[in-house]
Amino acid sequence: MVTVKHKILVLSGKGGVGKSTFSAQLSFALANKDYQVGLLDIDICGPSIPKMLGLEGQDIHQSNLGWSPIYLDSNLGVMSIGFMLPHPDEAVIWRGPRKNGLIKQFLKDVHWGEIDYLVVDAPPGTSDEHISIVQFLLASGIDGAVIVTTPQQVSLIDVRKEISFCKKVGIRVLGVVENMSGLRQPVSDLRFERIDGVTGVEDVTEWARRYIRENAPELSSLFACSEVFDSSGGGAAKMCAEMSVPFLGKVPMDPQLGKAAEEGRSCFEDKRCGASAPAILRIVEELIASHEQLLA
Amino acid sequence: MVTVKHKILVLSGKGGVGKSTFSAQLSFALANKDYQVGLLDIDICGPSIPKMLGLEGQDIHQSNLGWSPIYLDSNLGVMSIGFMLPHPDEAVIWRGPRKNGLIKQFLKDVHWGEIDYLVVDAPPGTSDEHISIVQFLLASGIDGAVIVTTPQQVSLIDVRKEISFCKKVGIRVLGVVENMSGLRQPVSDLRFERIDGVTGVEDVTEWARRYIRENAPELSSLFACSEVFDSSGGGAAKMCAEMSVPFLGKVPMDPQLGKAAEEGRSCFEDKRCGASAPAILRIVEELIASHEQLLA
Repeated sequence: MVTVKHKILVLSGKGGVGKSTFSAQLSFALANKDYQVGLLDIDICGPSIPKMLGLEGQDIHQSNLGWSPIYLDSNLGVMSIGFMLPHPDEAVIWRGPRKNGLIKQFLKDVHWGEIDYLVVDAPPGTSDEHISIVQFLLASGIDGAVIVTTPQQVSLIDVRKEISFCKKVGIRVLGVVENMSGLRQPVSDLRFERIDGVTGVEDVTEWARRYIRENAPELSSLFACSEVFDSSGGGAAKMCAEMSVPFLGKVPMDPQLGKAAEEGRSCFEDKRCGASAPAILRIVEELIASHEQLLA
Repeated sequence: MVTVKHKILVLSGKGGVGKSTFSAQLSFALANKDYQVGLLDIDICGPSIPKMLGLEGQDIHQSNLGWSPIYLDSNLGVMSIGFMLPHPDEAVIWRGPRKNGLIKQFLKDVHWGEIDYLVVDAPPGTSDEHISIVQFLLASGIDGAVIVTTPQQVSLIDVRKEISFCKKVGIRVLGVVENMSGLRQPVSDLRFERIDGVTGVEDVTEWARRYIRENAPELSSLFACSEVFDSSGGGAAKMCAEMSVPFLGKVPMDPQLGKAAEEGRSCFEDKRCGASAPAILRIVEELIASHEQLLA
């Protein structure tokens, strides 16, 4: 760990808010900027990183220096607890001490070499594992934590807990990312259904598209937006102001970003993630800038 | 626990798939059918049930029979670890043994009285807590588990683990619910934007709604659908077939359902959740029917 310049812990209060997707895309973005990057996935119960980087089924090699990460590019090494599992369908049912031992080994025995950024994708919540992770990372020096949330109150409630956890254990909160912040897509991509108490649900997409073309053609060039998660409470920005932590920005819900994650692709490699990639890039750049300021 | 007829454990492999929302609405649905219902939330790190039932800030009362649930209705009692926390922003950082002790006490010392259904909202994953929960519930008799997932591969991977966990510990899988299965909402709820290379993003919702009313009024009664999460892998139905467990059905992503959850309301109390409530009700009815068959 002494050869690692910056260590960033990616946390979330709740699961399913896109923490792993953000960790993966943050790593892609840093690697695109020619930094030497390591991505470490220590989510024991549900390691998603192998899938999100297209590395499923890979094996880890052990050398006399320790475990070797799997290199996606010459400057992007990946290590995941998922690589250690015997069978992808197998549940990992480990009691605390065994889990903590494995996590410690993971943090200690991976041979990263000289790298600029290590992104650590932690499990959601504030449980046993977090204490172990944090104790170890604090001892070896850590820059801070990025916390990922959705705009929903139920997620924000848990983020408040996560922030208080960081304050309690002495980890700097680098900032909060609001993910899945509203859906936006072309009206022409929508499907339409008629719901009726008697006949049930009927797909009327063909009819509706023709009806729009004939009667309301100007609608076709618009984007339909919808607030998937209620953010009437003010979302992450308001919570950040209240808790005096930096707000890093919003990433809209983009079906194409989900698809990129499912297929293990970078959202920056082509134009498909046009609704989300620029927002992620802005956040990464802000993160790098605040880092450099911190160290200057 | 001897006075509880049916015990249903609600599980998910990953967090954030709507497990607590489903547990809450399942309880509302059973209570609507005049069953005596208990809802027990043992998600230590992120107990969402108090918020989702509009019971935030309530205190638990202790009698000589044990802890008393909080009654939302005469036939719907709720108990959550959230009621025990000193401050909502406070992180619960408990090591394994203390957590397991609390969970056991929660399962043992709540005085439910004579009830038909106990819905247990468990933490996501397959960790320490699950072993404790399952050991206790198996000893006192449990009907089985309902597993909630989204259509995404990353969630389905974790559900496979959860199913293998259930098989390993001997808990019957009552079925799998595919949640957030595409976004469905009334066309009249959509917002509209015009995106232009020169002027940028412009909100044209008011104009578009009038335009629809005047030119394409039949559109207003339709639902707009979009596939938020990629389900090209076949989704939960295919996985269920492969793993030989029952598929209970799909619940569309419905912003109104999210809003109901945020505000602690039943999705059945009015027509607002028209996109999701009928789907949930069908699943609940199938669950009850399969139960009665099982016991016949």
